[in-house]
Amino acid sequence: MKINNNYLNLQDSYLFSTIAKKVNECKQDNPSKDIIRLGIGDVTLPLPRAVVTAMQKATIEMGNKDSFRGYGDEQGYGFLRAAIADYYKKRNIVLDANEIFVSDGAKSDIGNILDIFSQDNTVLIPDPVYPVYVDTNIMAGRKIVYINGSVENNFLPMPDDTIEADIIYLCSPNNPTGAVYNKEQLKHWVDFALTKNSVILFDAAYEAFIVDDNLPRSIYEVEGAKSCAIEFCSLSKTAGFTGTRCGYTIVPFELVAEGKQLNKLWLRRQTTKFNGVPYIVQRGAQAVFTLEGQRQIKENINYYLENAKIIANALTEAGIWFVGGDNSPYIWLKCPNNMSSWEYFDYLLNNAYVVGTPGAGFGKNGEGFFRLTAFNECENVISAMERILKNKLRILKNN
Amino acid sequence: MKINNNYLNLQDSYLFSTIAKKVNECKQDNPSKDIIRLGIGDVTLPLPRAVVTAMQKATIEMGNKDSFRGYGDEQGYGFLRAAIADYYKKRNIVLDANEIFVSDGAKSDIGNILDIFSQDNTVLIPDPVYPVYVDTNIMAGRKIVYINGSVENNFLPMPDDTIEADIIYLCSPNNPTGAVYNKEQLKHWVDFALTKNSVILFDAAYEAFIVDDNLPRSIYEVEGAKSCAIEFCSLSKTAGFTGTRCGYTIVPFELVAEGKQLNKLWLRRQTTKFNGVPYIVQRGAQAVFTLEGQRQIKENINYYLENAKIIANALTEAGIWFVGGDNSPYIWLKCPNNMSSWEYFDYLLNNAYVVGTPGAGFGKNGEGFFRLTAFNECENVISAMERILKNKLRILKNN
Repeated sequence: MKINNNYLNLQDSYLFSTIAKKVNECKQDNPSKDIIRLGIGDVTLPLPRAVVTAMQKATIEMGNKDSFRGYGDEQGYGFLRAAIADYYKKRNIVLDANEIFVSDGAKSDIGNILDIFSQDNTVLIPDPVYPVYVDTNIMAGRKIVYINGSVENNFLPMPDDTIEADIIYLCSPNNPTGAVYNKEQLKHWVDFALTKNSVILFDAAYEAFIVDDNLPRSIYEVEGAKSCAIEFCSLSKTAGFTGTRCGYTIVPFELVAEGKQLNKLWLRRQTTKFNGVPYIVQRGAQAVFTLEGQRQIKENINYYLENAKIIANALTEAGIWFVGGDNSPYIWLKCPNNMSSWEYFDYLLNNAYVVGTPGAGFGKNGEGFFRLTAFNECENVISAMERILKNKLRILKNN
Repeated sequence: MKINNNYLNLQDSYLFSTIAKKVNECKQDNPSKDIIRLGIGDVTLPLPRAVVTAMQKATIEMGNKDSFRGYGDEQGYGFLRAAIADYYKKRNIVLDANEIFVSDGAKSDIGNILDIFSQDNTVLIPDPVYPVYVDTNIMAGRKIVYINGSVENNFLPMPDDTIEADIIYLCSPNNPTGAVYNKEQLKHWVDFALTKNSVILFDAAYEAFIVDDNLPRSIYEVEGAKSCAIEFCSLSKTAGFTGTRCGYTIVPFELVAEGKQLNKLWLRRQTTKFNGVPYIVQRGAQAVFTLEGQRQIKENINYYLENAKIIANALTEAGIWFVGGDNSPYIWLKCPNNMSSWEYFDYLLNNAYVVGTPGAGFGKNGEGFFRLTAFNECENVISAMERILKNKLRILKNN
């Protein structure tokens, strides 16, 4: 038996293990210091009460003979797909329930969707970006081309006619940069995809952080997108579901390639290789879309956005270049004094006792940049930024 | 963009939709008749109390700031992997926690495991069998060869030297036949795989139904299996988790191909394309492995096994050939009077008002056979078998 040799082309990622190692060393050397983590891409607030209540009720149902549920449809219960369709309707996007696939999270579907595409397709991936886009395509042996994020384009790269790509990844609000495409920019991408007969894989996992009404929260707010884009969304950051696992993927009926509806191919993939999301979790997810649930998740999101604003204000005061920080839980900053990502990591850790994520971990264009996240307690964020400001002054003084 | 053209080679399955259609027609034509379903491959008893209690506790934890859990390890929480390792230890199988991968069910992992193997591998699949083995390999464009189950081999086909295959599927207790390999038979398969450098994908989803202590519940009870076999297990039928979604996959460290540990490849696959099973569900799964949980699931399994025995006894009385029915919730019978699978389906439905599953839906060797399942209430099973016996007599009388 032979293995999939494409796996040998994967690079081991030591990003988070190296961070953990360095933090532990710092802790041991400075036991009295309080280290603040602004490097975590994981929520810190608990599940909203509406979700907990719904899951408790569903758990009881599962323990009673008359209300017990066995296998559900692989693509999700009708009650949840209807709730998601209603959520889109608020933004004037009309979806059929069968265009909505409930998933165990965006990461799974973003990886698994590649099953339905030919291995001969060329893939376009922004750099820097969430590493899963790259790794899943290396696993399948696809040709990958990159499009560069930079200070010049505010880490929102745009297409030009020289690009040839079959599959295009876009992530907005972006992980790791926090940058958000506006409607005109997304329209350019949609037009480009329609012209080139490409499919856009649109990762909207952070859409709920968009508070500016002029910014699109779904690619389907752009005309023509239903004919060229698949959208991935998740309740992980929206509703604290990182440990509860539920998301959804939209594959519009209009999306056709070689005469085949991608919706039907994906349905076949999911019914063959997936058995749906737990009933209990789907009831919890349904509660997210109720009035009460929406109010509760907005409270949490606002808490994180307040943290992001604190970080952004401090960086502005320090004269440090950054994107993100509004409409996103992420802040992407240029390392002061032309430090490399890891130099700045070490500097911050050992001088300010603050942990962030080196941008180099997200692609070559991430070198010299650094990610801070809003997922922490407000008091910690304030302390961390005070320390960063103090150290920024120290850097300036020493030069 | 091009689609994965292998999908065009998939055959649409109308098995369960055709059954549903025929049952609905029968209902409309005979509104007063009570139709009994013995065709369902889904549990009917609710979740055990120990599981419900554990999940309720975990739900409350998720709603509190101090006990909230975000992302867990993709391969599962330590507490659950330790419980699974203990479960294996009872059968003298020693597993490292890192050889155990918690999954959202056997179906997902049986499909996704193919990611780590070359597309050039030839696959050996028993016929009849669970259709997912075939479809997932068609999707990847692999060459499939079949090995025949028959009355002669009691639907437990054995290898011979003419077979060349890289990946071998075995399912014991088998779905759909209920047949169970004994240790000598599995040893033949393991030796064959070791000689041919093949990997066995061992589907043990129904292992908990084995009550005969002489029959192997894990392929690792056979010497040498750790060097050639991956085992898939599920709590779906074991503990009523079909709608709660949790299973586990064992990839031993000893399993090496082209100098690479398959364990490491699978870990890379899972960390890249999966985000783990909900914390709440993992706490429920942990409860299955407690003393209390084991006692409760055994009660349920015994209930189903009693049903299976009622079916088996009735078929014996009627002189109908069958396999399964002990150590399995499935009974696989030869259609009386040389009827085809669908002829017998129609006959049973319209004369006895009993629904089963035509064997032809599980491969060409399933033609002329029929699956009954023990997943129903005991009273219904008794009524169904009385009706089947009465109609068997009627068939005999008419010939």
